[in-house]
Amino acid sequence: MSNKIQLGIVGYGNLGKGAVKAIKATEDLELVAVFTRRDPKALNLGEPGVKTVHIDNASDYQDTIDVMLLCGGSATDLPEQTPHFASMFNTVDSYDTHAKIPEFYQSVNDVAAKHHTTAIISTGWDPGLFSLNRVMAEAILPNGGNYSFWGKGLSQGHSDAVRRVEGVKNGVQYTIPSEDAIEKVRSGINPELTTSEKHRRVCYIVPEEGANKAAIENEIKTMPNYFADYDTEVNFISEEELARDHSKAPHGGFVIQSGNTGEDNNQLYEFSLKLDSNPEFTSSVLVAYARAAYRMNQEKQFGAKTVYDVAPAYISPRSAMELRRDYL
Amino acid sequence: MSNKIQLGIVGYGNLGKGAVKAIKATEDLELVAVFTRRDPKALNLGEPGVKTVHIDNASDYQDTIDVMLLCGGSATDLPEQTPHFASMFNTVDSYDTHAKIPEFYQSVNDVAAKHHTTAIISTGWDPGLFSLNRVMAEAILPNGGNYSFWGKGLSQGHSDAVRRVEGVKNGVQYTIPSEDAIEKVRSGINPELTTSEKHRRVCYIVPEEGANKAAIENEIKTMPNYFADYDTEVNFISEEELARDHSKAPHGGFVIQSGNTGEDNNQLYEFSLKLDSNPEFTSSVLVAYARAAYRMNQEKQFGAKTVYDVAPAYISPRSAMELRRDYL
Repeated sequence: MSNKIQLGIVGYGNLGKGAVKAIKATEDLELVAVFTRRDPKALNLGEPGVKTVHIDNASDYQDTIDVMLLCGGSATDLPEQTPHFASMFNTVDSYDTHAKIPEFYQSVNDVAAKHHTTAIISTGWDPGLFSLNRVMAEAILPNGGNYSFWGKGLSQGHSDAVRRVEGVKNGVQYTIPSEDAIEKVRSGINPELTTSEKHRRVCYIVPEEGANKAAIENEIKTMPNYFADYDTEVNFISEEELARDHSKAPHGGFVIQSGNTGEDNNQLYEFSLKLDSNPEFTSSVLVAYARAAYRMNQEKQFGAKTVYDVAPAYISPRSAMELRRDYL
Repeated sequence: MSNKIQLGIVGYGNLGKGAVKAIKATEDLELVAVFTRRDPKALNLGEPGVKTVHIDNASDYQDTIDVMLLCGGSATDLPEQTPHFASMFNTVDSYDTHAKIPEFYQSVNDVAAKHHTTAIISTGWDPGLFSLNRVMAEAILPNGGNYSFWGKGLSQGHSDAVRRVEGVKNGVQYTIPSEDAIEKVRSGINPELTTSEKHRRVCYIVPEEGANKAAIENEIKTMPNYFADYDTEVNFISEEELARDHSKAPHGGFVIQSGNTGEDNNQLYEFSLKLDSNPEFTSSVLVAYARAAYRMNQEKQFGAKTVYDVAPAYISPRSAMELRRDYL
């Protein structure tokens, strides 16, 4: 029997694939099985020791798996899956529909508290690490302003929107934080900034043959909610260029708290991420928080938890003594 | 009787003064008294509601004060004061002699566990927030390198060293992170860097009248341990310029984790501080962690704790529900 914490993964999209790789990079965690709605035989993980199992048979693994990583989407998967799996397993998920988090928390907490499991919800980087830094920065510097910037990042929703424009064959959209806005915030003047003042949008569009480029550009730039309020740039490229230069999913961003202490001393607190692969980083955060779900459950901390409830030592593979001696 | 958490401050140096201001900036914390080894009547806080009390009479306040902020120095004050006060109060301190932390932890933990108090040690920014980010970044990105840079900051120890050089009337020293080294780290190549390769040192010296400037510069640049291994710059200025331009105590720095996930995706995690006033920021961190000391004690989490043991929600004035709804 292994001393490692035994993990399962539910869902084998980008996040699930990232989680498989992230678990391999650790020494204290072991992947038992990937659970899928598809035919499990059709899944080729390239990991001989790891089973592929139909999601309906997950309950057979209650005695084997310590923590289940829920790698589904927030729109339809997680609102059903997290309460379902939290009745049988400790779980970690990346539920990110900000407006519905209180409701989601409640539904998961009811189940996890009743079944004595520990369900860490809404991890990843935003929600997740960004959320953590917003709260810590404000607790330390209450006289100040807090700013979140996102990007440079590929936005799935906005990329979908440009691809629906007539005459567009393919395309992607990047959200880019405004350097000018960041510099204003860093200068300590605590500016009032809307989301559209903090970001610009850059599109790379492959037009259909013979399409009216001016019409495409105009339709994108005037699209309500998505682009109309933003400084938007539209570039036309070939299908080859799109495949060569825009096939990754980079993302990142900044959380900046600019605060004052004493008479007039400016104090700048900044957290940032620059990610080549958004899903691989998000799943790396999920995997680290799996340690916390396991350990907090061992200590009978049952129910739904967020990053705010997790002492940082719980996510580290190192002992408390090592942390104090080598990292403090 | 107030609903606010009742605080005391031990020591009225730069940290203690910063703590008085930081407590005033909160709505949920209240300062009861400042304890001093000096004549308490000689202390003018400018805060009518706050008592000044001799340190020997602190035990009279055991029923009044929820958390004592220990604002003494690490060299001689805290090794005695933290165990002493932890026998009577919950405490927060900024003990920062990295090499002796395990020993310090042990001595405080013995007392706090026995007396059912909660003593959060070694808070501030390094140790403190930097320590937290080193551990979280490594837990999330185990395949990577972790780099701490300090500065631009006024270094007390190095300023003392230059002032001891013959012919130096007054002077200060700034530690400055090497832009070149930071860029190398950000590029993802995970370079091997010594502390001296990561930082340069810049001195502003007021020479005695008629002093040999070349000899001063040479003695500073060749001083073992302090300067010999560093790219060191020596500038000569007047006493007026020193007073005008170098009377603040700025500091800050960067914790950067550059990690790889999957095949070859670089992921950059960065935390940084740029502080006009090092002591005011440090005391703001202490004040935030006072909430944690109080709350963890209410939950019977007794003993010595570090930032690794403190769930972030404990340092925030907001409720768990507010945090989930408005910050996650």
